[in-house]
Amino acid sequence: MNKILIFGHRSPDTDAITSAITFSYLQNELGKDTEAVALGKPTDETQFALNYFDTKTPRVITTAAQETQEVMLVDHNESQQSVPDINKVKVLAVVDHHRIANFQTDNPLFYRAEPVGCTNTIIFKLYKENNVEIPKHIAGLMLSAIISDTLLLKSPTCTEEDVKAAEELAEIAGVEMETYGKELLKAGTDTSNKNASMILNDDAKNFPMGDLTVRIGQVNVVEVNDILDRKQELLDEMAKESDENAIDLFILLVTDVLNSDSIAIIYGEEQAHVSKAFNKEIKASTIELDGVVSRKKQVVPPLSAQFN
Amino acid sequence: MNKILIFGHRSPDTDAITSAITFSYLQNELGKDTEAVALGKPTDETQFALNYFDTKTPRVITTAAQETQEVMLVDHNESQQSVPDINKVKVLAVVDHHRIANFQTDNPLFYRAEPVGCTNTIIFKLYKENNVEIPKHIAGLMLSAIISDTLLLKSPTCTEEDVKAAEELAEIAGVEMETYGKELLKAGTDTSNKNASMILNDDAKNFPMGDLTVRIGQVNVVEVNDILDRKQELLDEMAKESDENAIDLFILLVTDVLNSDSIAIIYGEEQAHVSKAFNKEIKASTIELDGVVSRKKQVVPPLSAQFN
Repeated sequence: MNKILIFGHRSPDTDAITSAITFSYLQNELGKDTEAVALGKPTDETQFALNYFDTKTPRVITTAAQETQEVMLVDHNESQQSVPDINKVKVLAVVDHHRIANFQTDNPLFYRAEPVGCTNTIIFKLYKENNVEIPKHIAGLMLSAIISDTLLLKSPTCTEEDVKAAEELAEIAGVEMETYGKELLKAGTDTSNKNASMILNDDAKNFPMGDLTVRIGQVNVVEVNDILDRKQELLDEMAKESDENAIDLFILLVTDVLNSDSIAIIYGEEQAHVSKAFNKEIKASTIELDGVVSRKKQVVPPLSAQFN
Repeated sequence: MNKILIFGHRSPDTDAITSAITFSYLQNELGKDTEAVALGKPTDETQFALNYFDTKTPRVITTAAQETQEVMLVDHNESQQSVPDINKVKVLAVVDHHRIANFQTDNPLFYRAEPVGCTNTIIFKLYKENNVEIPKHIAGLMLSAIISDTLLLKSPTCTEEDVKAAEELAEIAGVEMETYGKELLKAGTDTSNKNASMILNDDAKNFPMGDLTVRIGQVNVVEVNDILDRKQELLDEMAKESDENAIDLFILLVTDVLNSDSIAIIYGEEQAHVSKAFNKEIKASTIELDGVVSRKKQVVPPLSAQFN
C-alpha cells in the first residue's frame, strides 16, 4: 500500500503548503500513512515560515497517480487548481475554505469546508475535535498561514474563529504575533529578484467565468511602485502567457499589505467586465481598488457576476 | 429577512426528512432563523417515527426561490436531487454523507460530509461540537434515521460512529433500540396499499452515468414475494415512466431487511451493464443480489464503473 499524498493548490501560497504539512501530521497521528507534498515551490514568505519553524520543505509532485491511488486535498477542490491527473486517483478527504466547483467524486468522502479566512483555522479545529496535541512547529506553521491569508487578521475574509485560532497558536508557537507577522509578510514582498512571470504566477489561479478563463494573480507589497514601475514588462508577459495558455483575461492584484488597498493591472479584451464589476474606470491598464485585499471575497464574486 | 429553508433530497426517506428537522433545531439554537421543510411527503416509516416522537410533519415545498434567498441542504448535494430552483438561491451549508457531484457555488460555504452511514450521525457530532443539548424527540428522530439508513446497524455502510451515536441516542430517546428499530422498519415495509408508481418512486434517485440517466428505486420488505408477485405491473409502470422522463435504465432494488439481501427488477435497453456490474445473469427481468442492501455503496459504484 502506497502512502496517501496530501497537497494544496498549484502556485502554492503559505496556506497551501503548510496546510498539507499540518493536516498530514494530524492524519498520521490518527493512524493513516500520509505524506505532505506540494504542487509547486514555496514562495519566499512560505520559505521564511518553514525555516523559522525548522520544517523540511515538501517535495514537489507533478503527478499523483504514478505513485498512489489515494489523495487528500487541502486549501482547494477545483480540479483545474489541482494535480493534473487528479481524476485518476481517489480523493479521500478535502479540507478547504473556498467555494466548491469542478469537483466530483464517485464515492462518499470526508469533506470539511467552512467560510473562514484560512484552511489552517479548520485544521486547528480538527486537532481539537480529535484530541491531538499541536506541536510547537505545527502551531507556528498554522499561525503563519492565518497571518498570510488574513494579512495579519486585517482582511475582510478574517473571522472570529481565525482570530481565536491565531491567538492560541501564537502562544503554542512561542512568538509575538504582530512582530512575527510583520517579518513574515515582509519576507514575502521582496520582488526585486523576481522576473515578470514570477510576479504574475507565484500566487495565481485560473477561474472559469462564463465560457472564458480568467487568471488572477496577486502580489503583496510594501511599496506598490516597485511593481507599477515594471508595468510594461508585466503587460508584455501577460500578453505572451495569455496567448500560450488560452487566457481571456489576466489580472494582477498588487496589494499594499500595510494599508490594505490594491491596484490591479489588467490585460485582455474583456476589460469592460472589470470596469463594470468595480464601477470604476481602467486608466492605462490599471484600476485602483480601494480597500480590496481579498481575491476570493472581493474580486472573484463581483467579476463572476459580470460574466454570468 | 426571510427564514433560511433547510431540506433533504426529493423522494425523501427518513434521514432526508428528519435531518432537516434536527439540523434546523441546531441552527436555531445557534441563533439562525431556519425552518425545516421537505421535497416530498414522508413515507410510512418516516411518519411512524414522526408520530412516535410527537413531531410535526414538515410542509412540502416545490420552490425555494419564491420564499427565501438562502437555504441549507441536508442528506444530498446533487442539484438533480434538490429543489428545482436550487440554482436561484444561495446554499449556506451542506451536511451530507454521499458523494459530491453536480454541485457548485459562487461563494465559500459550510460543507460537512463524512463517509458514515447516516447524515444524522454527522449532525449528532455537530450538536456535541457546539455544546447544544439534544432534546428527547430530536434524539428519537436521529436514532430513527440511523436505524433506517443502516437497517438496524447491519448495512455495510454502517460505521463505528453510527453505532456509537445510535447507542447514545437510544438512551436519550428512552427506547430499546432493537425493539423500536424492528417496529420502525416494519412500518415502512407494508406495500399492500401502494400502487406501482409509489413502490418505484417512494425512495428513488436519478444518477447520471456516462451520457445516460439511471433511476434506482429501493423498497424495503419483510416478504419479497409481496413485490415479485406484482412484477409485470411494476415493469409496465417502469416502461411508462422511462418514456415520459427520459430514463435510460430503471432499477428497483427489493431489499429483504431482515435477511440483508436484495432482488432487483430491471427495465431498459442497458440491462447488459447491470449484468456485467454484478457478474450475474438477468433472468425474466430480475437479478439476485446476495448480501446487497446499500444502493449507494453496493449498486451505484459498480454500475457507474460500467458506464464510464
